[in-house]
This record gives sequence, C-alpha cells and structure tokens, in this order.
Amino acid sequence: MYQSESLKINEQGHLEFGGCDTLSLAKEYQTPLYVMDEQVIRNNCKQYRQSMEECYGGHGLVLYASKAFSCKEMYRIAMEEGLGVDVVSGGELYTALSVGFPAEKICFHGNNKTKEELEMAVKTGVGYIVVDSREELSLLNAIAGERKVKQPILCRMKPGIDAHTHSFVQTGHIDCKFGTVLENGDSFDFAKLAAAQPNLTLLGVHCHVGSQIFDEKPFLLAAERMMDFVVQVREILGVTLKVLNLGGGYGIRYTEQDQPIAYGDYMKKISEAIKSIAHDRNVELPFILMEPGRSIVGEAGITLYTVGSVKKIPDVRTFVSVDGGMSDNPRYILYQAEYEMLLSNKAKEEKTASVTVAGKCCESGDLLGENVALQEAKAGDILAVLSTGAYNYSMASNYNRIPRAAVVMVKDGASRVIVRRESYEDLIRNDV
Amino acid sequence: MYQSESLKINEQGHLEFGGCDTLSLAKEYQTPLYVMDEQVIRNNCKQYRQSMEECYGGHGLVLYASKAFSCKEMYRIAMEEGLGVDVVSGGELYTALSVGFPAEKICFHGNNKTKEELEMAVKTGVGYIVVDSREELSLLNAIAGERKVKQPILCRMKPGIDAHTHSFVQTGHIDCKFGTVLENGDSFDFAKLAAAQPNLTLLGVHCHVGSQIFDEKPFLLAAERMMDFVVQVREILGVTLKVLNLGGGYGIRYTEQDQPIAYGDYMKKISEAIKSIAHDRNVELPFILMEPGRSIVGEAGITLYTVGSVKKIPDVRTFVSVDGGMSDNPRYILYQAEYEMLLSNKAKEEKTASVTVAGKCCESGDLLGENVALQEAKAGDILAVLSTGAYNYSMASNYNRIPRAAVVMVKDGASRVIVRRESYEDLIRNDV
Repeated sequence: MYQSESLKINEQGHLEFGGCDTLSLAKEYQTPLYVMDEQVIRNNCKQYRQSMEECYGGHGLVLYASKAFSCKEMYRIAMEEGLGVDVVSGGELYTALSVGFPAEKICFHGNNKTKEELEMAVKTGVGYIVVDSREELSLLNAIAGERKVKQPILCRMKPGIDAHTHSFVQTGHIDCKFGTVLENGDSFDFAKLAAAQPNLTLLGVHCHVGSQIFDEKPFLLAAERMMDFVVQVREILGVTLKVLNLGGGYGIRYTEQDQPIAYGDYMKKISEAIKSIAHDRNVELPFILMEPGRSIVGEAGITLYTVGSVKKIPDVRTFVSVDGGMSDNPRYILYQAEYEMLLSNKAKEEKTASVTVAGKCCESGDLLGENVALQEAKAGDILAVLSTGAYNYSMASNYNRIPRAAVVMVKDGASRVIVRRESYEDLIRNDV
Repeated sequence: MYQSESLKINEQGHLEFGGCDTLSLAKEYQTPLYVMDEQVIRNNCKQYRQSMEECYGGHGLVLYASKAFSCKEMYRIAMEEGLGVDVVSGGELYTALSVGFPAEKICFHGNNKTKEELEMAVKTGVGYIVVDSREELSLLNAIAGERKVKQPILCRMKPGIDAHTHSFVQTGHIDCKFGTVLENGDSFDFAKLAAAQPNLTLLGVHCHVGSQIFDEKPFLLAAERMMDFVVQVREILGVTLKVLNLGGGYGIRYTEQDQPIAYGDYMKKISEAIKSIAHDRNVELPFILMEPGRSIVGEAGITLYTVGSVKKIPDVRTFVSVDGGMSDNPRYILYQAEYEMLLSNKAKEEKTASVTVAGKCCESGDLLGENVALQEAKAGDILAVLSTGAYNYSMASNYNRIPRAAVVMVKDGASRVIVRRESYEDLIRNDV
C-alpha cells in the first residue's frame, strides 16, 4: 500500500485516514462511505496556487474543476483557498452560488449548455463562459443583448493533440465533440466570429487535452500551439487574447504503478514555454487559467465498504462481494479503471489473495476490480478502496434504487458529514 | 423507423407516441424527457399473464423485474395487472411497499443483500427471498429465528449456460458473482444446507441465464437443467422443490435488426419441456416464476431531447449534441448499446445523415450513439430515442450535477407526470 501523511496503518493495525481509524468511521457512519481528507484537499489547492505564484508571478487563476467532486462544502473549501472553479452545468453553478462563491471567479464549460443555463450564467455574472459552438455563440450574444451586458467569453478549441490516455477521456484531438478544430482554420474563423459579437467580450481561448495524463509533453505542446494561435489572432485580426485557459488533466496515483509528476513541475515548464514564446513573438503575457479537478480531490478520498460474502469458485476466481458497487463507483465498469484496495481491519497483513471485488447491483458487470491483490477476506471485513475522491460520488446513481452513500470529511482525527446519506424517502420524493 | 400501435407518424409529420404528439410533450414538459406508454406496459403484462394461463394452466406467477424501471406508479401498474415483482434492494422493496404492493408476491434478489435489507424483507413478509451465498443463508436463518418466523426462500444457482449476449450481462455461467455452481456439485451442497436451516423454508431454486437474449435455446436448456436438479434433490435429499424461478432476459427490439420472439412462444416451449420432464421423471409440476423486466417496459419508453448544436467536422464526423446524455442514458458508454433515433419534428423526412449523437456531459465518451441514421439536424430539433423504457431512468445519475429528467406517462392521447423532474434544490438537499 502506498502511504502518505494522510494514509497510514495505525497501532491497532487498522487503516487510518486523516488521523481517523477507518473502522471507527465505518461503525459510526455505516458503509458504503466516502471519506475525504480536508487537509489533503487544502494542501493540493495551496500547491497549485503556490506554483502559479512562484512560476508565473501569480498572473493567473487556478480553477478547481468541480465536476470531479461537487457539493457545497467543496466549493467553500475552494473559495477559502482562493481558487476559482469551473462548472459544467446549471446544477454545479447553482451549488457554487449557494455558498456564496464569487461569480467572477467561475468559468462555465460544456459542449451544449442550454438556453436556461446560459441565461443563468449571464444573469449571475459568471466571469468566463467558454463558448463551444456557433449556435451557442449566437444564442449567448442574444441573451447578453437582452440583458444589456457585455459577457466575457473564451472560445474552446481542440489543439490537435492526441494525448496518451483512455479514448473516452481524450479531448484535445480533432475527433471529439468539444470546441473547434485548430488545424483546419475552424478555430480561427470561430475566434473572428466571436470577436465580432456586439454583446460578448472575447477574452481568450481554452483547450483541454485529456484526463489522467502523466506526460508533460501534451501540455507543453498545447501551450505552444495556443500561444501560436494568440499570435496569429493578434497579427491577422488585431485582437489580443489576454486569457489562456489550458484546462486540466493532470494524472494522479490510483495504484502504485502510477507515478504522477509534481504539480509544480507542470506549471514551471508551461510557464517557461509561455514566457519564452510571449517574449520571442512580442505578445502580451497572457493571464493563465488552469483547471485541476481529479488531482485536487482524487487521492484525498477513499471509500469504505463492508464485505458480505466471499465465493471461491475453484479454477475460476474468488468473488469478494461488498455493499456498494457500480452505483457508487462506476469507473471500473465504464473504463476498467484500476484501484488499490485493502482490508482496513487487516491492513498489516500481507496481501496473499488475488480476487474479483464485486458490487451488490444485480448486474454481472458490477465489479469494482479484477485481479485485485488483497488480504484474505471474510464477511464483516471493511474494504477500503483508495483514491476515490474524484468521479465516484459525482458519478453515483440510484441504480437498483440503492441510496447514495454519505460523504464524511476527516481532518486531524476529527470527522463530520458533508453530504448526508440518502434515505429511502429521498428515493421516492419525486415519484407521483 | 419501426412503427406500432403506439409509435406513429401523425398528419403533421411528427412522431406520435401513445396518441400524443411528441413535440407537444417536449413543449409542455421540457426536455430531456422520458415518455412511457401505459397501454404498451399493460399489454405486455397481460401477454405474460395470459401465456402463463394458456401454456401452464396458471400454475405460476409473472414477476416484473423492477430494476428495469422502478417508481411508485410502475408498481401500481404491475399490481393492477396481477403481476408479482422482483426487487433487488431495500430501496426497490420500500418503493413497492409504499404503494401497498402485496409482500407475498415480492421476490427479493441480490448477490449481497445487507443485514438491514434482509431484516426489512423478513419483517415485511416478502414471499420469496432468493438466497445467494452461504453467508446470507446463515444470516437470514438467524434473522428469521429472532423474529420467530419461517422465511420462504429460493436458492440461486448458475446452470452453466453461456448465453449469447454481452459479457457484462451474462449471468448463467460459472464465472459470475451470483449464486452457486451447478456443475461441480456446489448447488446441490447449498440446497442441502438450505433445507437444513430451521428457520427457512426451501421452496425452490432460481436461475437467470442473461439479458437481451433472442434465442430460445438457453432458456430451454436452463429449464431442463433446473428440472434435472429438482429430480436430483428429491431423489437424494427427499426434498421437493416446488418452485422454479427461471429468471428473465427476453430480448427486445432496440433497432430494426432486433427480432424478438413473441413472449408467448418462450412460455409455450418452456412449459412443454417442464411438463414433459415432470411427467417422465415423475416429479410434481413446479410452480413457475418468470421475471421479465426489459421486455415489459423497454419498448414502452422513448426519450425526447432538444438538439443544441450540430458540428460537421470535415472528413471526421458530424456531432449532433443534445441536452441529455450519459446522465440519463449510460447504456451507450457502458455497453455501446444501439438505439434507433429520429427527429420528431422531421419524422416524415428521409434519414440522409449518419451522425454521432453526443450528450451534454463534460466527457468525450458521453455519446448516445455513433453511425446513427438521422434526418438532417439543426439546433432546436427534437430528437427521439426509441426503446428507452428499461435501464435508462433506473440508471440515471446526477453526473455533472444534471438534474434527472421527468417521466411522463402517456395513454390514448393523454399525458401525466409520474416522476417529477429534479430541481436544483433537490441536488443540494443532502449537502451540508
């Protein structure tokens, strides 16, 4: 097991997270349970802010990509840490605003925002709307016109980079639903059209090359191509793009094989590249936005389950079934995403078994992992899945009418509920 | 487009469903919108009941597998049509009981029911609990003992059948998390153990060979193997298994290529096989349970979306983006499930385009289909996806904090909401 300041094995031989014994957490709050370590989240926020200060003189803003984990408390933390946020729907925007998040530090994304969402964004004064299509450009211009405001926007573009990651999460190459295509001139035409809209202020451009990337090269390449574009737009259109949003996608550690690059290192190299191009091509140094999501919350979360049964099928495999599954973490069935797991109550024991961890949903594919190294399991054990802070709670469903799990925040040995467990009553609240 | 009593093109050239113009529905209730045709659901229920009557003298019960589509109104309909239901969680059980569904006609499934769920099932008098593992057998016996009741149970077994379907939804073969293995004697040992529990009444056995199956053979083979097992248990243990639950898995029409077998045909052939074996081997004719889910609601539902943008990327593909996606229908990203689609307002026009239909979630993989034949689309068009009645609403999530869509029931030209659209307030209800 990888250990950290937050993740330890305590004297009782139990897994400890954020100073809390995970067995005590399971007992107090029941399972399945999402647990997030506030200190880890805050440290990650601070590291990003600090690297922006140190490497780029603070001429930028770190936006927490809240689709990774969105709830009221998370927006409060991002706000307290001085970050902005990116939101991808009216629901995320609503949640952020509900805790008083400053609208001018919010960036609104999405390939197909609805009219209602755009109206909400304009009305509430969202700082950056990332316009994705010509239809949206025209709609947003009309909405801003009706409200008699000049809405600041960025244009989303695909810099033509095929980052080395799962095909579902590649977003920087031409064959993707987002934004406009750089290489065939589409992005340029779009920027020209955007600059001509009377009720919109074209602040800059946005790109996002993909997710869970460990290699610096695609980020550097994207930054270079975006800077080239800034130069091109200035030279031909006479328009200065002052804001460069470079998206996110920084890889995190799911298993011991994953070797993420220190967050500061990305910023250092990207800053150098941008400064150098700005200097050489004589353009204004852009204000930089970056959008870490997974890397702020991913390793800050674990999920606790109770083992219900262990089935050893001779010559086939051993199934360890737990009280959650694809309803709280669909990433294995969606992407065959690997996680490190251990038994909290046997954390000191050696992992001698190789098992399939199955969920409780009535579906064969409802697995949390295959060929998982684990201690010898039996009913009643508490299973911990590590690095579940991102895209677990946010992707949870009520499939099989399973209530969504609670989220507990731990910090220095104390714990508190930040999202209450759903009740059966919640499940039928909207049923007529 | 395949047409039916329910699904038509009306005089205005619009798609009509259950006698309602789908454009009017989209306008009245907004999109995305799930629409279900009550008459189709009721007809399907009736057909199953009728085939049980005609082919098997009514010596059985059709259980609606409610995980396909679960809400209060659906349990009411199943109840009114004289069906039982199968539930797979405390949440489904709670919903069924909330409308007064008779507990004795409920069958409780799941590879890993929790203690709380088993206690709830015993307490409320659920008619059949399908026991899946040795741990559960022991736990359930203890719970029934505490309450001083004899709980009726079935034992789940895998009859060793590798049905020809998507690997995620194969459940009848040895390498699957459910039940016990027939071929190595495990199922027999389990039945023996079950029969010996003082507080449980072993009524029979259950199997389920898979989902979305068009071929009769796996069902017939399963019925034969289960009957052989019944004979074996009677001969060796002297225990009569009176109930045979043959599960579900009957394929439906998603696209014109799909050719489902008439429901009655399954029942006819399976009845014949069971009667013949019972006669030849001189065992009591078992009471049969069957569990259609998808085939009762799947074709009874469609989903309506509004097109937001159309992006033609030369030499790559055309993306048609709609206002829903994997949050309301994750079946494409999960299983690459194909659906027939059309533009409701252009239903009469020829499908001259081949497009990728993309959702609005911030994820490249959020597609509803690729290589979809469609009329020429533009923003504002209403897209209808057919056969979405099963495993769409039930698998919906709030990914990207998108509120879940409403479900509207149509019948003979009238419409009513049966599940209200989620509000933004609903999204933060449990946030602290």
